[in-house]
Amino acid sequence: MSHNSFGHLFRVTTWGESHGPALGCVVDGCPPGIRFTLAEIQAWLDKRKPGQSRFVTQRREDDLVKILSGVMFDEDGETMISTGTPISMMIENTDQRSKDYSEIAKRYRPGHADYTYDVKYGIRDYRGGGRSSARETAARVAAGGIARKVVPGLVVRGALVQIGKHRINRANWDWAEVNNNPFFAPDPAIVPVWEEYLDGIRKAGSSIGAVVEVVAEGVPAGIGAPIYGKLDQDIAANLMSINAVKGVEIGNGFAAAEISGEENADEMRIGPGGKPVFLSNNAGGILGGIATGHPVVARFAIKPTSSILTERRSIDSDGNEVDVRTKGRHDPCVGIRAVPIGEAMLACTIADHYLRDRGQTGRLK
Amino acid sequence: MSHNSFGHLFRVTTWGESHGPALGCVVDGCPPGIRFTLAEIQAWLDKRKPGQSRFVTQRREDDLVKILSGVMFDEDGETMISTGTPISMMIENTDQRSKDYSEIAKRYRPGHADYTYDVKYGIRDYRGGGRSSARETAARVAAGGIARKVVPGLVVRGALVQIGKHRINRANWDWAEVNNNPFFAPDPAIVPVWEEYLDGIRKAGSSIGAVVEVVAEGVPAGIGAPIYGKLDQDIAANLMSINAVKGVEIGNGFAAAEISGEENADEMRIGPGGKPVFLSNNAGGILGGIATGHPVVARFAIKPTSSILTERRSIDSDGNEVDVRTKGRHDPCVGIRAVPIGEAMLACTIADHYLRDRGQTGRLK
Amino acid sequence: MSHNSFGHLFRVTTWGESHGPALGCVVDGCPPGIRFTLAEIQAWLDKRKPGQSRFVTQRREDDLVKILSGVMFDEDGETMISTGTPISMMIENTDQRSKDYSEIAKRYRPGHADYTYDVKYGIRDYRGGGRSSARETAARVAAGGIARKVVPGLVVRGALVQIGKHRINRANWDWAEVNNNPFFAPDPAIVPVWEEYLDGIRKAGSSIGAVVEVVAEGVPAGIGAPIYGKLDQDIAANLMSINAVKGVEIGNGFAAAEISGEENADEMRIGPGGKPVFLSNNAGGILGGIATGHPVVARFAIKPTSSILTERRSIDSDGNEVDVRTKGRHDPCVGIRAVPIGEAMLACTIADHYLRDRGQTGRLK
Amino acid sequence: MSHNSFGHLFRVTTWGESHGPALGCVVDGCPPGIRFTLAEIQAWLDKRKPGQSRFVTQRREDDLVKILSGVMFDEDGETMISTGTPISMMIENTDQRSKDYSEIAKRYRPGHADYTYDVKYGIRDYRGGGRSSARETAARVAAGGIARKVVPGLVVRGALVQIGKHRINRANWDWAEVNNNPFFAPDPAIVPVWEEYLDGIRKAGSSIGAVVEVVAEGVPAGIGAPIYGKLDQDIAANLMSINAVKGVEIGNGFAAAEISGEENADEMRIGPGGKPVFLSNNAGGILGGIATGHPVVARFAIKPTSSILTERRSIDSDGNEVDVRTKGRHDPCVGIRAVPIGEAMLACTIADHYLRDRGQTGRLK
Repeated sequence: MSHNSFGHLFRVTTWGESHGPALGCVVDGCPPGIRFTLAEIQAWLDKRKPGQSRFVTQRREDDLVKILSGVMFDEDGETMISTGTPISMMIENTDQRSKDYSEIAKRYRPGHADYTYDVKYGIRDYRGGGRSSARETAARVAAGGIARKVVPGLVVRGALVQIGKHRINRANWDWAEVNNNPFFAPDPAIVPVWEEYLDGIRKAGSSIGAVVEVVAEGVPAGIGAPIYGKLDQDIAANLMSINAVKGVEIGNGFAAAEISGEENADEMRIGPGGKPVFLSNNAGGILGGIATGHPVVARFAIKPTSSILTERRSIDSDGNEVDVRTKGRHDPCVGIRAVPIGEAMLACTIADHYLRDRGQTGRLK
Repeated sequence: MSHNSFGHLFRVTTWGESHGPALGCVVDGCPPGIRFTLAEIQAWLDKRKPGQSRFVTQRREDDLVKILSGVMFDEDGETMISTGTPISMMIENTDQRSKDYSEIAKRYRPGHADYTYDVKYGIRDYRGGGRSSARETAARVAAGGIARKVVPGLVVRGALVQIGKHRINRANWDWAEVNNNPFFAPDPAIVPVWEEYLDGIRKAGSSIGAVVEVVAEGVPAGIGAPIYGKLDQDIAANLMSINAVKGVEIGNGFAAAEISGEENADEMRIGPGGKPVFLSNNAGGILGGIATGHPVVARFAIKPTSSILTERRSIDSDGNEVDVRTKGRHDPCVGIRAVPIGEAMLACTIADHYLRDRGQTGRLK
Repeated sequence: MSHNSFGHLFRVTTWGESHGPALGCVVDGCPPGIRFTLAEIQAWLDKRKPGQSRFVTQRREDDLVKILSGVMFDEDGETMISTGTPISMMIENTDQRSKDYSEIAKRYRPGHADYTYDVKYGIRDYRGGGRSSARETAARVAAGGIARKVVPGLVVRGALVQIGKHRINRANWDWAEVNNNPFFAPDPAIVPVWEEYLDGIRKAGSSIGAVVEVVAEGVPAGIGAPIYGKLDQDIAANLMSINAVKGVEIGNGFAAAEISGEENADEMRIGPGGKPVFLSNNAGGILGGIATGHPVVARFAIKPTSSILTERRSIDSDGNEVDVRTKGRHDPCVGIRAVPIGEAMLACTIADHYLRDRGQTGRLK
Repeated sequence: MSHNSFGHLFRVTTWGESHGPALGCVVDGCPPGIRFTLAEIQAWLDKRKPGQSRFVTQRREDDLVKILSGVMFDEDGETMISTGTPISMMIENTDQRSKDYSEIAKRYRPGHADYTYDVKYGIRDYRGGGRSSARETAARVAAGGIARKVVPGLVVRGALVQIGKHRINRANWDWAEVNNNPFFAPDPAIVPVWEEYLDGIRKAGSSIGAVVEVVAEGVPAGIGAPIYGKLDQDIAANLMSINAVKGVEIGNGFAAAEISGEENADEMRIGPGGKPVFLSNNAGGILGGIATGHPVVARFAIKPTSSILTERRSIDSDGNEVDVRTKGRHDPCVGIRAVPIGEAMLACTIADHYLRDRGQTGRLK
């Protein structure tokens, strides 16, 4: 019940500040016999790391993950096999320059958690945002790398579908395009539009919000649970726990408010092999909190970062009115790097529900 | 971790099926010394109960709540005082006619949880929807009645802000109007529009989605927690757990995706009495998962009920393709009755976080 | 995390006071498809109920259990089949005479929880002990009745092995004798000894402690978990939660402190059918927190009830020194009625670990 | 609910194997503003570490703890101040020689968890006992070092009170003696007896069980909770989770079974300053699961380690009958080093209940 863990059977506890010696996570509940390589986990972290294009922060963080427990090596000396004990992963902080933070130590940046941390705790690690830094999400992405392996056949992918008022054309959706541009955009036609738009934002020292869509295929029908153990409920919680997220929706989401029962309900038929199929997927793969077997689809809205060059009115911890301007390298659109984070949270949520349904130990099969 | 409870310190466990002898809840964690009357709790249930206008189901359910434990009576013989032990509340089912359910026992109603329950459990109480019936929410509303008393000065209110494509005009918002119309509409100008629109839906045997907004005032700054114990995360989870909800947003929510950092961040100043104030509330009262002290604002989208008179394609549990038409009395817009349910879930979430922050027992003061 | 539940996947929440309208429990997490009759559950309650011999309290409580949710009836109209939804059970209080409690409302009975409840909560339902009454254990016994059905082949039995300094002769152990005497004694030779001894205690208005042994056979090897999810750890917790229990031991327990590694370690051989067998069971069926497949054996010590006729020095809630003498019908040895309670707690613990290992839903098989 | 955490608000998650690169823990829920030095934490680890006398294992493990997160340094550059975020602690494994483990990789050592791990997980890190090694307890001791600081005025101490059949004389109890001998014995008269006895055990390559007593003073009256959140219940669980523990008792424990209600119930009087006092402490500081304010007293029995030089009958994972003899350096009496571990578990349990009662954040005062 303390506040740095999520999941029940696939349980992830993260720790670490932006400017401490390291950050990491403990993945408790990974079943035994799951096979993966360090390179596979690192690949997800690389997708999240900064400095990959001019549209994300220019900070240098290599984000190299180490695995400290919970695995044995296969005979190839490279493949790790989980043993069912906790998998501890650590990412050392290498770019924590000992610069002067005295200016922001007392000033509350508008839109940040500086003020609320101080109200709650009376003490706050202000260096680089401390615990509230988006660096914490590196640990989530590492945990997600394990989660993806837990459910046989699971594929979790994400894409950016909106920046500011500019939305993709869903008719153009092509998963193969997502890694061909710096935005994780599934619609190649939107790329030049976003490039030009974000260049403007970036040069103005401003920032802009975005919407991410994450999709899980291969989710076994029947996982999840009704009432308060709903799969969609846990997806909503886990996506909402990502920094800067202000809204979450499942399937057609808020659009469901605008349509009729006839339009909304997914009809069923018997498909090939006598398998039940839904003829549409407005439900986003979940009915009554339980997976239908169709893709699980969720979207989440990320607010624009408050780290902007324009001065904003604020106060400091001594009760003075001040004006705050956040200097330094920042993400003009934090939504871009939120794509792998959203994928990781969705993968962890599904792994957790899979284990609740199937049991936790080696005799899963 | 079983799936019929929510909350950690203010913990609610609900039980009961639509057509069993009764349903109810156990509220575990209510601090001692909380004072309330049965009439106060009943009033919230009355707000949710069916049959109050032509725009909701015409079923008759009196939904009279009994309190079986956890309280002592004050000397007036009417005011109950919580003792810190679990408060068990029960609502007997009085309208469970023993009719023939054989037709729907095997047919999966499209858009309902019939199919997924069967996949998961292999057995399902099909009478009146069983556990997945919206009747379960009566227990939530009763629990919410207790929760509202736990946090001194807390006021939780809700309103319907959208039916289909018809939205209220926020400039007209007047809380005093909410109880003056059958829709919990805060904008009197929308009432005739919705009346005409919903009459059409109802006569066609169709249904329509909606959006509800819930607001909590008097939330103490500092409650909540960062990372995975976020107040907004738990609000998202608990609202998403309501039947038919497909999306949740906090503060400006999905609209935050469309604006810049300058527009979005709520600036601060020192207000009257030297108290920090935010000059706007785009954050919906929560920063970094922790309450700012400003109103907590959330919205959720409810899909249209799938109980409609039009035949829809489906299958049955024997693998036959069938057409399903849901006869009987139903809610043309379940979003209306979702207002008190959303309020209850918000109140319970805030009470839970309040106790996490302040501790659980009598010496709270 | 509130304090009236135990178990994780087989989760039991109890509620109710000794002198309220009813008490009961919600069993959340019972898998679907479990079959039982009301008479089977009632039989366990009858074993615990008072008034069955002169050695237990002479109060009249019929303890009739009602099942309010979570089951459907089989075609025989009698067998209940669990549906996977919460099973709510209620026992109405029929003997709650509205007598004058003013004398004990303010006096702290030595050895009872009166003082600590008041320190913690500042309010206390003093009528008949309120929530701290042993009546609460009736709900545990009902839950245990369900738990016994969850694990195929599980048999849980208990016996009284010590009253005061009088211990059974383990060489005489015969399970068939347990229900042939008013003490649940497995050794017929001890019965006359205990009868004479307890008659003396009873006539003196005194009380005496006891030790209960509970044994579970048919526990599948492999359930449980290492480190902090140990089967023995949860057994210890759940037995210690029974009123008046002051010690718990597993297998040879405290006697293990006195012997050598050679004597203590259970050797192994390949048994009939190639099945691994242990040649002794000092471990009490658990190694490293995980079941070996041999019987799980636990014992617990129950202190003598503090409800005695001799005056004892105490204080009242106004800070006065007083002398307290507890009048009325009481159990000279509460350990006797603790036998079915211990069985129930052991059964619930094993059911919980079984589901953690195997998963929670219908497709367990 | 995964199995490597304990506590609810003061929540400790441990990770790591005996022969991996490191082991450690995450302490989640430490309130902000708690001050301590690394040296203070290290001192507890030093008390547990091997090689300190001829009566414990001769392995070399320095067990140097690093703190990776959750603290800021005070101006002295040495005192750490908790910030309310997770405190991650790591102990690198320095003595993990890459020796040949092939012999024990398949053989189940009698009395160890080798067999049950294999049954449960189908894979097991056999190197040095892997996760089931007592090295895991180093992380508990580190966490206990933090816990001791959380409750103002709390003093937790432990002592060895029995080795084999040789018990201390309680009349000689002197806490000052505990650190003057290699056994943590509070009775100097027992020291030569134990020395001679254990020398014999050690030279024979045998082992022997023991009993540890742990005592917490300064536990505020009112912490704990009734029914299933009992302080004694959690103490029992947490002590039982220590490797090799087979029994736990609170206060007079199993001895309570042998005495009358008159002898057992602790009488009360008004003490100095009008403060309620108990005239004895048979209850071990806990009534109805709630602390009385008197010292909390618990004892636990540790079985003799199964690592002995005598051959014992066993089987291997291929189903062959084998004889196993555990070579190498071992503890003749693991109970000795269990003293600081028991202290740590008691301190963590009390810190957890303290926070449940008082709330988790900075405004505790």
